Amino acid sequence: MKIYNSSVAPNPRRVRIFLAEKGIQVPYEEVDLAQAENRQPEFRRINPLAAVPVLELDDGAHIAESIAICRYFEELHPDPPLFGVGAEGRATVEMWQRRMELTVMGPIADAFRLQHEFFKGRIRQCPEYAAIRKLDALERLGWLDSELADRRFIAGDKFTVADITAMVAIDFGRLSNIRIQPDQSNLARWHQEVSARPSATA
Amino acid sequence: MKIYNSSVAPNPRRVRIFLAEKGIQVPYEEVDLAQAENRQPEFRRINPLAAVPVLELDDGAHIAESIAICRYFEELHPDPPLFGVGAEGRATVEMWQRRMELTVMGPIADAFRLQHEFFKGRIRQCPEYAAIRKLDALERLGWLDSELADRRFIAGDKFTVADITAMVAIDFGRLSNIRIQPDQSNLARWHQEVSARPSATA
Repeated sequence: MKIYNSSVAPNPRRVRIFLAEKGIQVPYEEVDLAQAENRQPEFRRINPLAAVPVLELDDGAHIAESIAICRYFEELHPDPPLFGVGAEGRATVEMWQRRMELTVMGPIADAFRLQHEFFKGRIRQCPEYAAIRKLDALERLGWLDSELADRRFIAGDKFTVADITAMVAIDFGRLSNIRIQPDQSNLARWHQEVSARPSATA
Repeated sequence: MKIYNSSVAPNPRRVRIFLAEKGIQVPYEEVDLAQAENRQPEFRRINPLAAVPVLELDDGAHIAESIAICRYFEELHPDPPLFGVGAEGRATVEMWQRRMELTVMGPIADAFRLQHEFFKGRIRQCPEYAAIRKLDALERLGWLDSELADRRFIAGDKFTVADITAMVAIDFGRLSNIRIQPDQSNLARWHQEVSARPSATA
């Protein structure tokens, strides 16, 4: 078993933090995104969509998509639960994980990818939409600050995978100058707490 | 228990098909998207992100996000399994469900939302990026056709939630003239089969 990893991209960081929270060690194999190693035919046989991370199982199967990888390990190592407890609890965490991914991480990733030099020639870019997505992201941070007024973590009183997605997204936002604003004290308090966990440096 | 629904939007259709496959009946309450009922303060107390569907539980809790709702019912009614079987099987379905959502449904939704009159004044639009997303979507349909060359359904030999997401996305593509191309015979064969299931009209 191993994980195709990139130490510079946000999605692999989600998996590394998740595994660190679980105390699970899996060997990592670095994929050189700067050299577009992920876009070569060899890597596309592992993941046709050219994205990292990818989990390679001992039977040779490949599981792509960060959250699919995290769920796999949640099943094998349920403690501590990072996808919630009980049917309603798990649905709530799934809702928040998806909200963090689709409405926070999505705009933050677009704001970078759609205009940055790194993705030139790799994807179809659109600086106009990158600028719109930056506005979207800043708006969502304001909303998230208000959501965190009355609870400790994103999905409730326990740290979950939704916190991992939100932290990784917000940290990645710095590259596009998308930052927690001075008046967003709830978000700042939460960010300080999750960033202080040992897993944050994984 | 009830579900805030829209009979015209793609995401609620995913949940209706899922429930039909399970043989589960839940009362639906229509939200009038044309009248922007979902953007009013009353509905934002149910889902601050103003999206349908939303599941309302008997304890008053609200679960938004189609896939979170589907997962909730998968736990309560495991048969037939639509999220896979076993840790590796479930991770594989999750991977494919996410691929269908992020790389097929995402571009198809953007191609519509970012330029269509319906969303004018509701979201920040960008016709330039809508056109790019249409190209992305058409490219992804070509890829999906090649993936379906050697298997019956999106995630393997069983119908799963990944098929639901892909079918709903592709059907929604018609509004933006994103269609299965004449040479995509695998995709056409698959689409015909999933569309013939009784659940497709739910």
